[in-house]
Amino acid sequence: MSNARPSDRIRLRRMPKRGHYDQETINRILDAGMLAHVAYTIDGKPYVTPTAYWREGQTLYWHGSSASRMLRMQAPGVPVCVTVTHMDGLVLARAGFHHSINYRSVMAFGDAQIVTDVAEKAKAMDHFVDRFFPGRSAETRPVHAQELKATSLMRMNIDEASAKVRVGGPVDDDEDYVLPIWAGVIAFKTVMSDIEPDERNLSQAIRPAYLDRYKAGARLDEVLSSIYDADH
Amino acid sequence: MSNARPSDRIRLRRMPKRGHYDQETINRILDAGMLAHVAYTIDGKPYVTPTAYWREGQTLYWHGSSASRMLRMQAPGVPVCVTVTHMDGLVLARAGFHHSINYRSVMAFGDAQIVTDVAEKAKAMDHFVDRFFPGRSAETRPVHAQELKATSLMRMNIDEASAKVRVGGPVDDDEDYVLPIWAGVIAFKTVMSDIEPDERNLSQAIRPAYLDRYKAGARLDEVLSSIYDADH
Repeated sequence: MSNARPSDRIRLRRMPKRGHYDQETINRILDAGMLAHVAYTIDGKPYVTPTAYWREGQTLYWHGSSASRMLRMQAPGVPVCVTVTHMDGLVLARAGFHHSINYRSVMAFGDAQIVTDVAEKAKAMDHFVDRFFPGRSAETRPVHAQELKATSLMRMNIDEASAKVRVGGPVDDDEDYVLPIWAGVIAFKTVMSDIEPDERNLSQAIRPAYLDRYKAGARLDEVLSSIYDADH
Repeated sequence: MSNARPSDRIRLRRMPKRGHYDQETINRILDAGMLAHVAYTIDGKPYVTPTAYWREGQTLYWHGSSASRMLRMQAPGVPVCVTVTHMDGLVLARAGFHHSINYRSVMAFGDAQIVTDVAEKAKAMDHFVDRFFPGRSAETRPVHAQELKATSLMRMNIDEASAKVRVGGPVDDDEDYVLPIWAGVIAFKTVMSDIEPDERNLSQAIRPAYLDRYKAGARLDEVLSSIYDADH
């Protein structure tokens, strides 16, 4: 990934001051998330599907329905764009034109490949669980061969990526600050509401300690970042 | 939009029981959101950008950076896929394979067009502000001709769409319910945290009543749905 000279594909044309190309900024945004939107092309038409993902170094992994569509394409690697977005607030300005959204997002480009090696797939599935619930893969029922076969796991090395971030209050035209119009930011956050044990849990099924991070009211982005940091 | 016979493009192959094609389900998901991921193709490569959107009937509107990339394509209409996703929880099962996510999402397909008519664009920009803050467009500083020119507004009639929804607890294999493994759901929600008035607000700039809906702790999806319902 080149930080100094963004390519034509990732260079931001609109609001260039919001663009970031350094790997640290990009990784922080990726590691605070669990939902990506993966875009791919079939017969020249665009598709984008939501999916859970995780990062290992400069590789993103995901599985789910996006893979099943892409699996039908016989290519060994297909170009995809993986976008992760955190929404942080609505920005109300004194002019309609300057209304905005506070957000952090990353667009990552690369060729997605299907992970076909069974051992690699098994390891990656464990990583997936452990990325969100450290140590859980050792506690759950071992994977069946049939399950591995039924899992579509995708892997993409990030060829290039860019981040786009907006923070702070409204930015109005100088002459509009004399207008008696309320302006400001409505901030929001994604937080845990409840942990709901399955009603069929056995009495011996103790609640694992790693769930303590996911306590009611905690911010999801902060929980995910802290788990990532503790593991690296 | 055909409800009875989903086309090949929108029919779900994986987890078909999670698919919904009725317009009411689709609209409820769209009207509970403000952030869409818009996918499009340039030179055969996929791109997906986050953007604020709103719905009017079977038309979606958005503007922002996705438009600026697409503007460079001279076509009068370009195929896009607009996906809206609400994440509701992490599902922990007794087997890694059955871990899942609770979510509500819509994929909508159509040809995106640039809104070039100035009057239509001005009206749509007002709608955009009023969709989130009913009546605000009449309070803000009137739009400048130059701002209208600088705005890239996109419009897409929904040709077809599908919703995908997962709710509820883990679904494990029958034989695994005897295992003493904790299973359950970590539910989360996006809520308002604070309303932060701009420090340059004049004393006469009274906080508008429509902000009352966005009170701390309220769920963003419910606020957006309630505003939509009150207006229709």
